[in-house]
Amino acid sequence: MTDHVSGFGSAATLEPFSRATSVRAVQEGLLTAELSGEWTIVGRPNGGYLLALLGRAAAELLGTGQVMAASAHFLRSPQPGPVEIEGEVLRRGRLISQVRVRMVQDGRSCVEALMSLGELDPAAEPRWDAGVADVPYVSFEDSVRLAPVTPDGSRVALFEQVDVRLDPDSMGGIIAARPSGLGQLRGWLKLLGDEDFDPISLLYAVDAFPPTTFDTDFSGMVSTVELTAYIRAVPAPGPLRVVNSARLIDHHCVDEMCDIWDATGRLVAQATQLAVVPSS
Amino acid sequence: MTDHVSGFGSAATLEPFSRATSVRAVQEGLLTAELSGEWTIVGRPNGGYLLALLGRAAAELLGTGQVMAASAHFLRSPQPGPVEIEGEVLRRGRLISQVRVRMVQDGRSCVEALMSLGELDPAAEPRWDAGVADVPYVSFEDSVRLAPVTPDGSRVALFEQVDVRLDPDSMGGIIAARPSGLGQLRGWLKLLGDEDFDPISLLYAVDAFPPTTFDTDFSGMVSTVELTAYIRAVPAPGPLRVVNSARLIDHHCVDEMCDIWDATGRLVAQATQLAVVPSS
Repeated sequence: MTDHVSGFGSAATLEPFSRATSVRAVQEGLLTAELSGEWTIVGRPNGGYLLALLGRAAAELLGTGQVMAASAHFLRSPQPGPVEIEGEVLRRGRLISQVRVRMVQDGRSCVEALMSLGELDPAAEPRWDAGVADVPYVSFEDSVRLAPVTPDGSRVALFEQVDVRLDPDSMGGIIAARPSGLGQLRGWLKLLGDEDFDPISLLYAVDAFPPTTFDTDFSGMVSTVELTAYIRAVPAPGPLRVVNSARLIDHHCVDEMCDIWDATGRLVAQATQLAVVPSS
Repeated sequence: MTDHVSGFGSAATLEPFSRATSVRAVQEGLLTAELSGEWTIVGRPNGGYLLALLGRAAAELLGTGQVMAASAHFLRSPQPGPVEIEGEVLRRGRLISQVRVRMVQDGRSCVEALMSLGELDPAAEPRWDAGVADVPYVSFEDSVRLAPVTPDGSRVALFEQVDVRLDPDSMGGIIAARPSGLGQLRGWLKLLGDEDFDPISLLYAVDAFPPTTFDTDFSGMVSTVELTAYIRAVPAPGPLRVVNSARLIDHHCVDEMCDIWDATGRLVAQATQLAVVPSS
């Protein structure tokens, strides 16, 4: 049931995630990067993509370790093109170290983030696990790939870089204005091209799905205020299983919780975000 | 079934939360505060208490609005006593503004935080609600108040400032080394004295319970790495209902999710944290 939704371009340029998030150290505490035009939604870089780029910058500044916890507050949406990343190592610890990073474009701060980094041991097994969320399971093969267009026809370039699939029962609000009303999107993610997800691209994965508001009666654009991600393990190769749930839409905001399991069923990432919704 | 657990001191000094978290502006971008010895666990200030104090400082720096999203990374555990809070208003927006704050003691950064602030309209009703978590409900009256001591007998001073109660079925791991294994603590919070919870003290409430690891086989001390809280509404007077759940304990860390409803059943706060656990 793949490629069910029409609209895939035949000439999409694959831009590997590692290249789209590469950073270059310029001087102490300053890096530069180029925001990709391919990892965008209606021309704007995705928030998780920005978080991943900042995560790479934080690891570069520290010189060791991987991001375990990342918290970002979004001030302004940057355009594709050059950005500067200002950063500071706040503390070097035995287990955990902290780094502050800020993405600046045209002299204005766009994203401010704090990161805690440590060593993710690829061989370490979970010691206790509450188990997979009690939600319906639909396989990668039986899920439906989203076309690189919004419901109103604007281009979602990044859906040509990553195969984003939804459980058919959770996508009624996206393709046909028939939300289930549960505020939940379930599905899968797979990078196109030769790369598999790694701890850096997991920071993108937690924000890769359409807004859960599409599965309620509030289908307008949402804008992320805060995004926090915890990276729990190095993911095994293969697609990621994703469950995104909203709990409450109030006057201004919606929350969204994201859990991600790798192809072996291991919980590899968790995230929450608060986003502004169109006012009532 | 209240006051079931013995050990309450008869001479506890009530220190109102508003006083224990008061801040004083000293100059542009700098405030001072005094960390209370009463809002401590085994002599150390509670992480949520520190977050609330930083939230008050952020609102003071901005001069308007309330904290809607707060993300803190914990570098060092401060002692009761004087601290400085360095802060910067990052952006003043129409709906949302951002502030960075840092708690410093003896010249060393202890907590770094980013906050997004806006206006919580006390009259605004939720527009969509996924409903209360599907977990057992036990009333405030039938829950059991925790004594101000740890399982090994050390003093938890803040349990003399706040009535922390657990559903008897979720407290086996705390009073008798009989965890349910679910990794879930359910119960209630009520400030003692004359104050009710408000949007600032909700930032404390999300970290007020004992670690959920007590409800698993891992009962050692945990240390918060990152804490993110979303304040969704001005709470109604009365006790708060709290559900804290862990999902995964791995080699280094445990996650913990906290949801809080006010006495009218409205979701007023949500939080996640990542904490370091004793190594295996």
